[in-house]
Amino acid sequence: MRAGRNVADRAELDELAQEVPVALEYNGISHATLLATPVDLEDLAYGFSFTEGIIRGASDVYDLDIVETEQGLIIQATIASACLNELKLRRRSLAGRTGCGLCGIESLDEVRRALPPVASRAGGHDPAAIVKAAEQLRALQPLHLLTGATHAAGWATSAGDILHVREDVGRHNALDKLIGHMLRHSHDTADGITVISSRASFEMVQKAAAAHMPVLVAVSAPTTYAVAMAEELNVLLAGFARENLFTVYSHPEYLGNKGAQP
Amino acid sequence: MRAGRNVADRAELDELAQEVPVALEYNGISHATLLATPVDLEDLAYGFSFTEGIIRGASDVYDLDIVETEQGLIIQATIASACLNELKLRRRSLAGRTGCGLCGIESLDEVRRALPPVASRAGGHDPAAIVKAAEQLRALQPLHLLTGATHAAGWATSAGDILHVREDVGRHNALDKLIGHMLRHSHDTADGITVISSRASFEMVQKAAAAHMPVLVAVSAPTTYAVAMAEELNVLLAGFARENLFTVYSHPEYLGNKGAQP
Repeated sequence: MRAGRNVADRAELDELAQEVPVALEYNGISHATLLATPVDLEDLAYGFSFTEGIIRGASDVYDLDIVETEQGLIIQATIASACLNELKLRRRSLAGRTGCGLCGIESLDEVRRALPPVASRAGGHDPAAIVKAAEQLRALQPLHLLTGATHAAGWATSAGDILHVREDVGRHNALDKLIGHMLRHSHDTADGITVISSRASFEMVQKAAAAHMPVLVAVSAPTTYAVAMAEELNVLLAGFARENLFTVYSHPEYLGNKGAQP
Repeated sequence: MRAGRNVADRAELDELAQEVPVALEYNGISHATLLATPVDLEDLAYGFSFTEGIIRGASDVYDLDIVETEQGLIIQATIASACLNELKLRRRSLAGRTGCGLCGIESLDEVRRALPPVASRAGGHDPAAIVKAAEQLRALQPLHLLTGATHAAGWATSAGDILHVREDVGRHNALDKLIGHMLRHSHDTADGITVISSRASFEMVQKAAAAHMPVLVAVSAPTTYAVAMAEELNVLLAGFARENLFTVYSHPEYLGNKGAQP
């Protein structure tokens, strides 16, 4: 690193975020390669496999090995044969990259997965908790503090206290890691708030819905397709969660006012 | 859209960025589906096809039709049969999504494309021009101004004046659109500066190098893999281009000081 004229290094951001090719193999068969930050890779493997509909739950993963090679890392998953058969049937060559959600989609028919709507309840979510969760997430991103290059996904209780955070250069990977972590530890996703440090694209909503998460709060903007998907899948989607404010884009009826600031 | 308590709408960002599934077909064969903002789709088709190595230049595209369907848009490209044969040989089922670069990669061997290094010259690039280009890009993003949800890629002269800008919800798409636009209009990419409003991941560097762009300036952070790739492919990669400053991560020897502010 070197600075030219009217150029300065930023010492506080001297660390670069690691982005490494990570290949996923299921029962010996190459399946997808993601570019990811090489931390919490087990969580990534579980989360990706789950939100892609490859496994039905953590118990479908029998074994997980991570192998280092010169070109990158290989996650070798051994999954239930029922899942593998299903995967072969789909014959989709999935692939993900940094910031990439579910991939390998060749035609328009395959873009949207058939997902059941998330169970949520009217008035069940506290606006003050959403604000609190978004604020807490900001302080809980050690990699971002070092690198300025990573996204985070956090899970907060219904009171807005963040319990779990995962980070990655790719926002989809961060969410998959969070989901994978919760899946592996059998944490309930039904009653709480998911906060992401990024924008909300369609795939982020689809992943949240696949994990039965009822509230998705993005620090930045959503897209039209994300909003349509959230509406359909019963996800309360909020965006621009900054400075004690946020905007609700779908299912405002799930907001309650218990504990809200006047 | 509706606001709850301690919640406010942001009227100035009332417009949502459009994110639409866009399928790419080459000579009738489904090839990839991207989630993209439906503007400048011809540019996207040319740029994606070029940076993915599917076409060798604009003249390899014989025809381009955009068809609207209920599920999204289909870009039907008719390309030279030599390209199609090559594509079939690769037998890669490419796919991209929002924020997705080149996809469909199943194993680690396929992650890096074999690209020749970009021709660049020592001392050829002016730091002041880099600062100027990054500053100008900020003011040239009409979609971002409306939505807060899009990324931009801009091309500036060696003096730092932005000539072309393209926007998209996906940063890779924005860069592909810019490259496609320049390819279609036979604009030279050898002597100037590419500025992106996003982070610089590995694929962004790979795309810039595929388009023979010698300088890639990111408003946000690069990743380790992006830096390694830029070093190898002779791309001057700068990051954190903000407030008259930037950090150089590769090939500082390509920076000159002609015209730099003291």
